[in-house]
Amino acid sequence: MTETQGSSPSRRSLIGWGGAGLALGAAAAGGAVAMTRTGDDVDPAAAEAGAAVGFHGSVQAGIATPVQDRLHFAAFDVTTTDRAEFVQLLKDWTEAARRMTAGKAVGEGAYGGLAEAPPDDTGEALGLKPSRLTLTVGFGPSLFKKLDLADRRPDALVDLPTFAGDALDAARSNGDLCVQACADDPQVAVHAIRNLARIGMGKVVIRWSQLGFGKTSSTTPDAQTPRNLMGFKDGTRNIAGTETDRLKKFVWVGEKDGPDWMVGGSYLVARRIRMHIETWDRTSLQEQEDIFGRDKGEGAPVGKAKERDEPFLKAMKPDAHVRLAHPDSNHGATILRRGYSFTDGTDGLGRLEAGLFFLAYQRDVREGFVRVQRNLASDALNEYIQHVGSAVFAVPPGVRDKDDWWGRTLFSEEA
Amino acid sequence: MTETQGSSPSRRSLIGWGGAGLALGAAAAGGAVAMTRTGDDVDPAAAEAGAAVGFHGSVQAGIATPVQDRLHFAAFDVTTTDRAEFVQLLKDWTEAARRMTAGKAVGEGAYGGLAEAPPDDTGEALGLKPSRLTLTVGFGPSLFKKLDLADRRPDALVDLPTFAGDALDAARSNGDLCVQACADDPQVAVHAIRNLARIGMGKVVIRWSQLGFGKTSSTTPDAQTPRNLMGFKDGTRNIAGTETDRLKKFVWVGEKDGPDWMVGGSYLVARRIRMHIETWDRTSLQEQEDIFGRDKGEGAPVGKAKERDEPFLKAMKPDAHVRLAHPDSNHGATILRRGYSFTDGTDGLGRLEAGLFFLAYQRDVREGFVRVQRNLASDALNEYIQHVGSAVFAVPPGVRDKDDWWGRTLFSEEA
Ligand code: HEM
Ligand code: HEM
Repeated sequence: MTETQGSSPSRRSLIGWGGAGLALGAAAAGGAVAMTRTGDDVDPAAAEAGAAVGFHGSVQAGIATPVQDRLHFAAFDVTTTDRAEFVQLLKDWTEAARRMTAGKAVGEGAYGGLAEAPPDDTGEALGLKPSRLTLTVGFGPSLFKKLDLADRRPDALVDLPTFAGDALDAARSNGDLCVQACADDPQVAVHAIRNLARIGMGKVVIRWSQLGFGKTSSTTPDAQTPRNLMGFKDGTRNIAGTETDRLKKFVWVGEKDGPDWMVGGSYLVARRIRMHIETWDRTSLQEQEDIFGRDKGEGAPVGKAKERDEPFLKAMKPDAHVRLAHPDSNHGATILRRGYSFTDGTDGLGRLEAGLFFLAYQRDVREGFVRVQRNLASDALNEYIQHVGSAVFAVPPGVRDKDDWWGRTLFSEEA
Repeated sequence: MTETQGSSPSRRSLIGWGGAGLALGAAAAGGAVAMTRTGDDVDPAAAEAGAAVGFHGSVQAGIATPVQDRLHFAAFDVTTTDRAEFVQLLKDWTEAARRMTAGKAVGEGAYGGLAEAPPDDTGEALGLKPSRLTLTVGFGPSLFKKLDLADRRPDALVDLPTFAGDALDAARSNGDLCVQACADDPQVAVHAIRNLARIGMGKVVIRWSQLGFGKTSSTTPDAQTPRNLMGFKDGTRNIAGTETDRLKKFVWVGEKDGPDWMVGGSYLVARRIRMHIETWDRTSLQEQEDIFGRDKGEGAPVGKAKERDEPFLKAMKPDAHVRLAHPDSNHGATILRRGYSFTDGTDGLGRLEAGLFFLAYQRDVREGFVRVQRNLASDALNEYIQHVGSAVFAVPPGVRDKDDWWGRTLFSEEA
């Protein structure tokens, strides 16, 4: 793996990648190779405005970078079995993503080309800021089968077991690949997915997609912790984007983990979790707080005063969510959460179709989500939620520079 | 009608209601009674932060006030036929709306009450700014029947005729009443609808709801015009919130219009319009521009240079959208548009379920939407769109002060 180590982010204003924090992190990790991102693809003006996140780096943006306000997530199915054709798509997508994350339109733009041709860009993001757009790509288990790459499928990319209480809808589950688009302006995120879908016409088709209107996690602990639709602060104890050593331990695939093509990558679990909010809203404050093991106002763990105080698990009910989710209850299992609240109209019974679109990144799905969810499938929260969609993806390493493309390490030998 | 005339907004920072503009407007209208709003319900701190819109006034907020970025719209069915019970609900809703629009929690808040009781507020908006939240209530034709008020139903509140091309889904149409929640933060808008639904439990039930992620119209012409999902600037020629005389002529129900209880009110038409964006995206730039009669980059009318230049209709194709929608093609019919873009996942065919949630306010539905839509049902745009949901509501006048409530003028004699 060619590293960008040593090339610290060149622009101070580049979001979330303070040079100091990274350098410190690399040092703390004992001089190990640090996963870094560079800002050479960011237009200085956009970076100055604090509105563009660098696209290039040894890891993909959208994982440890600060969580943006809105999400548009799409799972695609591949409709070609021609590997070369798919590789060309990944290259085209990379080029489009490079432009869109920098706040530029796709190709010749929305009105710059020939009048007789459809414009290269659909245009609805014209004049909008980059809005910290990040685009993160992942490959689902079925892709390896479809493109005859079964021998390259990582062991850590397991098919998820069925958990107690699962009520999964096939139409909202799985997918050959995914794109996570996060931005502070939803129009920018929707525009990005739509334009990628358009570029992929004839090669990929959207299988399902999800709009997330509000972040429920944060990777910047100094910021105000967002609240989920149950009214609780969510993401208090998460991995921060600046904690290089914990990211290395729990999120990024390392050189010893294998396969080689995944070094600098991660694994993503996506779960659409419906909340029975009408039932929740009839529950007493005491019970709500017991269920999480934290208080509703401040977000402090049971018996503690402040949100950031260390949780004392034994003070909580045995089936409290935080108690069962905590690393101490899961042999140290730790995941990076990056979920969003959703509201998709109403079900047939006059209830809001709302909940949490849960996204978690980890170095190994078996040691991350699977461990925690096995424990959580019996927590007190389950009376009020139901997992209705599920997918898992191998998220390849970052696009290093202008000549690199998404998935090169997986496909390069055959491309 | 008791007027708040003369009581100009007390706080300069109160959004969208510059005292000067209003005074001027009233003068221009020949000293006629002006529809005004006061800021006495706005917390000074919130107003200072530029983040709260006054709730009290002779007209409801959310119509001529500046368009916010996000929408959550809900249509409700009334499940009681007891008028007194319904009136009590309207009073409770008014009180909750007064608090929420000022950035306050409902009742005792999310964690202020008894631990043994469910909290009054669901909590997910705790710590968020008022975000210019407006809540606007409307009454559907079916409400007048259900509550035995048929004689009070305004003539201007017609059942919409079927237009060519309509493919309406009953599950996304009609409703006894509606609440339009607009805010710059979607979590604030979603929170508001959810808490009103909760207060209404046992009396009303959500029939359908719609999240709008991006505004497509503007009532502040100096701001950048937003783009719709077809990539065109939308809302260029709209009624501005400061044009008191045009609002009076086209939007607000006046004293001569009747019925009395509607003076200061308006009529809302809501249409869920699906866009076939994949087909649109394959259309040439020239054809796209011909369809609207404006260019894509600048938004200028055919043959003109600038967005705000006066359209010259004869230069446009006979079936161009702008040509057919323009007042000159509709006996002067003019509506105030306030629509939002939506994306609701994917249909079964891998296409984005996306489009325009069209909202229009007018003084009389017959002379507003019905006229324009009769003309538009044959415009060139129809190849790329389909109207799939429809509803119409009588939007009562504003809540004047702390003792007033939504719908009082309609219900007061019997309450
Ligand atoms: C609708 C479903 C869920 C809701 C509403 C929810 C909510 C919360 C809340 C309020 C906290 C406490 C604040 C914090 O530290 O973030 C928390 C913590 C946590 N949750 Fe969840 N959660 C949900 C599902 C899940 C799932 C499916 C997982 C993983 C399988 C998970 C893993 C965790 C972890 C690891 C923590 C931190 C525990 C600690 O270290 O103290 N949660 N969650
Ligand atoms: C998906 C459906 C629609 C799209 C994409 C759309 C888009 C547009 C665009 C781009 C403009 C030009 C800019 C402007 O002045 O706002 C416009 C103008 C207008 N549209 Fe639409 N529109 C749609 C549906 C409708 C409907 C259903 C109505 C009313 C029945 C309507 C009424 C108008 C009016 C009155 C104008 C201004 C005409 C003028 O005075 O120049 N539109 N629309």
